[in-house]
Amino acid sequence: MNIHEYYIKECIKLAKKGIGYVSPNPLVGSVIVKNNQIIGKGFHKVFGQSHAEVNAIIDAKKNGYNLNGTSLYVNLEPCNHFGKTPPCTEAIIKDKIRNVIIGMNDPNKNVSGNGIKKLKESGINVTSGILEKECEELNKFFVKYITKSTPYVTLKIAQSIDAKIALNNFKSKWITNDESRIFVHKLRSRYDSVLIGKNTAIYDNPSLTVRGTKGRNPFRFVIDRKGSLPSDLNLYTDENFLNTYTFISSKYSELKKISAKEINKIFLKEINHNIPLKEILKSIFKLEIASILVEGGGNLFSRFINEDLFDDVYFIVAPKIIGKGISYSGDFELNRLSESKFLNLDKVITSNGDIILYYKNIKKGK
Amino acid sequence: MNIHEYYIKECIKLAKKGIGYVSPNPLVGSVIVKNNQIIGKGFHKVFGQSHAEVNAIIDAKKNGYNLNGTSLYVNLEPCNHFGKTPPCTEAIIKDKIRNVIIGMNDPNKNVSGNGIKKLKESGINVTSGILEKECEELNKFFVKYITKSTPYVTLKIAQSIDAKIALNNFKSKWITNDESRIFVHKLRSRYDSVLIGKNTAIYDNPSLTVRGTKGRNPFRFVIDRKGSLPSDLNLYTDENFLNTYTFISSKYSELKKISAKEINKIFLKEINHNIPLKEILKSIFKLEIASILVEGGGNLFSRFINEDLFDDVYFIVAPKIIGKGISYSGDFELNRLSESKFLNLDKVITSNGDIILYYKNIKKGK
Repeated sequence: MNIHEYYIKECIKLAKKGIGYVSPNPLVGSVIVKNNQIIGKGFHKVFGQSHAEVNAIIDAKKNGYNLNGTSLYVNLEPCNHFGKTPPCTEAIIKDKIRNVIIGMNDPNKNVSGNGIKKLKESGINVTSGILEKECEELNKFFVKYITKSTPYVTLKIAQSIDAKIALNNFKSKWITNDESRIFVHKLRSRYDSVLIGKNTAIYDNPSLTVRGTKGRNPFRFVIDRKGSLPSDLNLYTDENFLNTYTFISSKYSELKKISAKEINKIFLKEINHNIPLKEILKSIFKLEIASILVEGGGNLFSRFINEDLFDDVYFIVAPKIIGKGISYSGDFELNRLSESKFLNLDKVITSNGDIILYYKNIKKGK
Repeated sequence: MNIHEYYIKECIKLAKKGIGYVSPNPLVGSVIVKNNQIIGKGFHKVFGQSHAEVNAIIDAKKNGYNLNGTSLYVNLEPCNHFGKTPPCTEAIIKDKIRNVIIGMNDPNKNVSGNGIKKLKESGINVTSGILEKECEELNKFFVKYITKSTPYVTLKIAQSIDAKIALNNFKSKWITNDESRIFVHKLRSRYDSVLIGKNTAIYDNPSLTVRGTKGRNPFRFVIDRKGSLPSDLNLYTDENFLNTYTFISSKYSELKKISAKEINKIFLKEINHNIPLKEILKSIFKLEIASILVEGGGNLFSRFINEDLFDDVYFIVAPKIIGKGISYSGDFELNRLSESKFLNLDKVITSNGDIILYYKNIKKGK
């Protein structure tokens, strides 16, 4: 690891402190270095508030330093436009910082490179592309959201080794162990939202909140085509009920089965007795939500896999063989192995007897 | 790691050189130590030939050493009885070795402790139980064979992450990758035998030999209840055909469908249209075969799981979702999760995108 990579790693660490609070803005951290020493640190803390670079500059000044001739590191290209805050490039130029070292360029094609250009025009030395892959991974939600105008979708599938996610009688709320459940709660704290299907809502009556670990609760989405879910579910009655949204087919918009006044309803047009996933993703995007953790059940997983609409997947595999039960891949039958949904194993995490396998989706290019 | 553990580890390393050649004898390695230096090494090389301790003594003498006052390390208690070779205790006593350090006692209840007793009676200092767990793992085949009078059974299940071992049309011989296949060939070289069902024999027409890695070929068993397998299969025609055994129901012993003269046939009584697995294991035990690698297909895996007749299992998981296909857990349906077949995750091996999960069976005590 060279010196640039070392400091960009520090930026990534700082950026991560913003997880859960800045979306759909990116996670950004910044350090200012003088004589091989960090003299100022900053990160983007809350959506809409000051950016990491500005926070680092303020911090360095508070520590009594003059920024003239220093180096600023940041994991994402500094902005060059007025948004909710003034452009970061201005602050960098004003304080006579000499070198700017950047992890990755702005993924937004319309502005990508503008910040770098502006800095260079002002005589600043700019280096970009340091630990680019790590920086892209850090902001994978933001990159997807900005470049594809749709949220990042992660499946979280808790299963036995024989790929059953529940018994046929649904008497199997927890297949995986306590340590894995803490892992799931940590995941939730990093995602803007979770999404479940109707059966999961009924049989598990989940809270989908973050418990046993630090972090804020995600928004909760549930698909209930006919609007028939009971209004006394945890999702609709706990203290976070205002953060629950229910997707209902517009065909059933006149029905009054869901009586709880407080339920946020989103009506979408159904096709072939299904609310299209693409329409659901569009709706979630419109709410400025950049990431979704899909938590079940089998039908919903099956649809995301079949339509190739997910970005990655966590399989949490319990050391059990269940036999007959509910799976998530019943909707498609292949003639050739080459037609399989191919994944890319990215991480392996042991979890007290369970094993967590994290795969990236290899898109077929649909 | 203390000094005793260090030398027992050396014994285990030496013992492993006998893998594939000593069964149903145990794997044994031995070192002789004088003034903190190994002066002689030996291992059990071939079934029926001289034991590790004797080979170590011969080696030390060849190196010009007097054994008076030295320490002998060995992973398994030295034998005290005349078998195919004279008792090792005699050699140890005769050469005035002062200390004997042992990994594990002889698992055979009838003779366990006899070797230690004999050595102690001769004034030798004996220490036992050093790295006992590792020593038992090393000789798990032997321990099962000796103590339970049945072979050690390992399932090797190559599957997609959604637990399919083949497409429904069977056009899917290789689900896992090249590196994992080498792993399987290495496994085969360590097992005395492999066992497959009829469908696997027909659809895959496997050789079940050791290729792409060093090691000898295992015996091959195939279950063919009606004796209807074609005699031109690789199993019956390749250069190892003499090592193939076919289990046929005695009900079909009069049929002449299997015409190849060279096929070793074992006729067993069927019950409910199945040859009982326990009878198959008994037959294999009678052939003095201590370990079986079960390589498929789904029905056979299902029966071993359902009857709880396996000791451990390697799941080789390809990064694919296949959808509908052939599984191995279709024969049982549970009412409660607590009725699952519980396993114990013992090892995780990454294999170029595949993941190999090794579990021990936690017996329900059936």
